[in-house]
Amino acid sequence: MGIRHVALFRWADGVTSDQVADVEGALARLPSVIPELRAYTFGRDLGISTGTYDFAVVADVADEQGFVAYRDHPEHQAAREIITALAADRASLQFTVPEPG
Amino acid sequence: MGIRHVALFRWADGVTSDQVADVEGALARLPSVIPELRAYTFGRDLGISTGTYDFAVVADVADEQGFVAYRDHPEHQAAREIITALAADRASLQFTVPEPG
Repeated sequence: MGIRHVALFRWADGVTSDQVADVEGALARLPSVIPELRAYTFGRDLGISTGTYDFAVVADVADEQGFVAYRDHPEHQAAREIITALAADRASLQFTVPEPG
Repeated sequence: MGIRHVALFRWADGVTSDQVADVEGALARLPSVIPELRAYTFGRDLGISTGTYDFAVVADVADEQGFVAYRDHPEHQAAREIITALAADRASLQFTVPEPG
């Protein structure tokens, strides 16, 4: 089994597309510096449904140790600071998932 | 590219583990009746972090058409009714993800 971490964010009023691009840039670097990440996807809401959040991060790791390594990694902490400054709401959770593929 | 749908739920006070098991049972049937689902994971929060939601569903589909087929499928609607009756909060979003590995 593995662990899937999910975090959804709702941006504060006035957050610009360029600021979100900065977030994406910071997150895009993480798989190359955090080997515990088995899979890493993130992105903006597509606008298909109403009442959705604005941005999602989904991180797959092998176990709790892998999640803590991701959570506490300096580059993740730096990315999280950028996000926290822009976010009005955050919803997150970690749950067990079957081994990939 | 594909689409990842994420929904997080916070249960209302008093929701029991057995009631969550009913949700899991209803969701477990969906991949076998909704062919548009490329991957489908769901589960309870592991309690690793503080302030998390209680339950997550992550559904991967090929495109918006696939998401709508999932969203509107009678068995998904039935599962959603069970969940809605138990949930105090819901956070969701759909975003673009690369083709699976």
